[in-house]
Amino acid sequence: MSAGNAFYAQSGGVTAVINATACGLLEAARRRSKRIGKVFAGRNGILGALHEELIDTSLESDADIAALRHTPGAAFGSCRYKLRSLDEQAREYRRLIDVFAAHGIRYFFYNGGGDSQDTAHKVSLLSARLDYPVTAIGIPKTVDNDLPFTDCCPGFGSVAKYVATSTREAAMDVASMAETSTKVFVLEVMGRHAGWIAAAAALAQEKPGDPPHILLLPEAPFHQERFLAKVRQTVQKRGYCVVVASEGTRYEDGKLLAEAGGKDAFGHAQLGGLAPLIAGLIRSKLGHKHHWAVADYLQRSARHIASAVDVEQAYALGQAAVDFALAGKNAVMPTIKRLSDAPYRWTIGEAKLSRVANVERKMPKSYLSADGFGITAKARRYLAPLIEGEDPPPYRNGLPQYVRLHNRLTPKKLGPFEV
Amino acid sequence: MSAGNAFYAQSGGVTAVINATACGLLEAARRRSKRIGKVFAGRNGILGALHEELIDTSLESDADIAALRHTPGAAFGSCRYKLRSLDEQAREYRRLIDVFAAHGIRYFFYNGGGDSQDTAHKVSLLSARLDYPVTAIGIPKTVDNDLPFTDCCPGFGSVAKYVATSTREAAMDVASMAETSTKVFVLEVMGRHAGWIAAAAALAQEKPGDPPHILLLPEAPFHQERFLAKVRQTVQKRGYCVVVASEGTRYEDGKLLAEAGGKDAFGHAQLGGLAPLIAGLIRSKLGHKHHWAVADYLQRSARHIASAVDVEQAYALGQAAVDFALAGKNAVMPTIKRLSDAPYRWTIGEAKLSRVANVERKMPKSYLSADGFGITAKARRYLAPLIEGEDPPPYRNGLPQYVRLHNRLTPKKLGPFEV
Repeated sequence: MSAGNAFYAQSGGVTAVINATACGLLEAARRRSKRIGKVFAGRNGILGALHEELIDTSLESDADIAALRHTPGAAFGSCRYKLRSLDEQAREYRRLIDVFAAHGIRYFFYNGGGDSQDTAHKVSLLSARLDYPVTAIGIPKTVDNDLPFTDCCPGFGSVAKYVATSTREAAMDVASMAETSTKVFVLEVMGRHAGWIAAAAALAQEKPGDPPHILLLPEAPFHQERFLAKVRQTVQKRGYCVVVASEGTRYEDGKLLAEAGGKDAFGHAQLGGLAPLIAGLIRSKLGHKHHWAVADYLQRSARHIASAVDVEQAYALGQAAVDFALAGKNAVMPTIKRLSDAPYRWTIGEAKLSRVANVERKMPKSYLSADGFGITAKARRYLAPLIEGEDPPPYRNGLPQYVRLHNRLTPKKLGPFEV
Repeated sequence: MSAGNAFYAQSGGVTAVINATACGLLEAARRRSKRIGKVFAGRNGILGALHEELIDTSLESDADIAALRHTPGAAFGSCRYKLRSLDEQAREYRRLIDVFAAHGIRYFFYNGGGDSQDTAHKVSLLSARLDYPVTAIGIPKTVDNDLPFTDCCPGFGSVAKYVATSTREAAMDVASMAETSTKVFVLEVMGRHAGWIAAAAALAQEKPGDPPHILLLPEAPFHQERFLAKVRQTVQKRGYCVVVASEGTRYEDGKLLAEAGGKDAFGHAQLGGLAPLIAGLIRSKLGHKHHWAVADYLQRSARHIASAVDVEQAYALGQAAVDFALAGKNAVMPTIKRLSDAPYRWTIGEAKLSRVANVERKMPKSYLSADGFGITAKARRYLAPLIEGEDPPPYRNGLPQYVRLHNRLTPKKLGPFEV
């Protein structure tokens, strides 16, 4: 069999380590150049395939590809573009196959969350139907940590480490000031549907009573009175109170506290601004001086404080994707399989895309403390290894040195396509 | 002369390196134990002196004192409490001298911003008037970088490094997503009266056109139309736009933008929150999808990404305070004196407290670009060395390991005092 080319695309919200996955994949492909020819990367994700904007990664130096391992963001651009069913978007799926055929692409690697695994799955189905063989491999990525069948999702461990570190540091600030100034601090973190990220803030605790004192999680409905009572009690007992709130914090009826903004391209409510809301509530009901922070993109791009475990797993999954493809596997996603908590040991597993697609993994009930404001020892055992180890980027002039690829497009062979 | 005791207090908003100053001071005092007896630290700053809550630092181990160098927050507690004139608060100043006399305190070290230098100055005046000799040394500290006579203020370099790093990282995120999603990102940083911190974000730029594309500084009055035109133009040209805004951004008439905040979903006036305000403006006027972040305490407590230069200077100033005191200097503040920009060289200088007190240093006009949305090469030469070098804390279980002192109080000798 002559070498087939490959297509790789990054999808959805980026992470501190999605480029580490790209690095693992591209380095593995370069080592297997007898089996894999060129790897084209989609410019701005799957849109790059639809528009035939294919970045020729063979034109990037080995050193620049290696530097992807420590570079945040999506080196080739990402997009929020969900392909719906094969029937609804037959034209788009067909176009993908056309572009793949025009460029000798036999391997499709799609690096993203649940939606992306769904797309990869559909490409595999269509490929069979059209008799144009494409090996489709999904590669997990999401700071939300909500994909099933994998112990964790690359990107999550680094956000977790950032959030736990920032919580520990900011809490020391609040503790210093509480006597005459700020008594309550609210940090808003990501997590639309699942509280994994906010839960990770609890890793900042070294002993009971340490901050963060209150977590607000989507899994535990928000009761204003119970929340305020807990804040009041904490300030009385500890002198100050640190709250870490998921953007997806909601009432019993499912309505988001932060629901106010617009909707994003997927039709999801655009969140943000929960922290000032909570802080305002505390001021008006309890009269405490407060401060609040919204980490937003800072948390998912903070490569400077990435988890070494996360980087290693992200890289390994990129490598595994190539191994799977060359081993003749199709319509699968490499996963992280945990072998033990302490010492933490893991290996690469696999899941069928047909089972992964569009399944959302919430935090198990057993991870939430009885009052819903904290996490259990079981949750702690799960979370702790994921933030282990430091893997700082190189620095120049006092700042992390990140690579910018040349991202040269390969000449088009097809006519234009309207998305 | 027998050894006199010393009093040290931390004042005002804390920084990532104020404990490095404490470390420098305490280690220097321990080395000079023939001249300086015990160093008492004020519990919660100067309040500790007024309440006679004196932490006996001699009860802390050398290892714990050494660990202060890499620990953020204020290890002994800080406070926002300004002593006004000697006439207005004669009782409080008198109490300070009483407490000092009761505990054999001959050295007063006050670590803070402009107000603290003013207090230290007044203590020196009163000490002379009451004929109870106290050597009063002010030690600079403030993330705002607004003290005069010192090239920079400890705490600023680390915030600058945090803000520049975070801006660089978040900008890569926005650049990745801009094709189909977020086009404008707004990061709000500290700086009520001076734009030093926002200006430092510009260090993230490697070449013209790099993000951050727009700085909003208190020194450059906000004009809505000019700002929106610049955002529109940047999105057209670069595909996205990154804005870093000082919390002190204001209109021509001096009114803060953040004071014009709306009401939140609970109907409360929204306090602070310049970033959501700016982001909302952009959405409503330009229709761009946006994200925003408010770094708040995260920025000034981020010891994990402290500037090595900043840590070193903070430590050196603590040491210098002891040297000054033992050299018979009084009513002075050790300063940072820049000898050259590149290579960066500095030494310790000194300033009279009588001149430092209550003078605020804004950014010079020559540091602002013509349109007010950026900084000049001159500003860059000033700022660049201050973020140089990394000085990571030790990590345990994936998190920075910070010290907590025992903070045991020495027995009281005086009656209670109402502040």
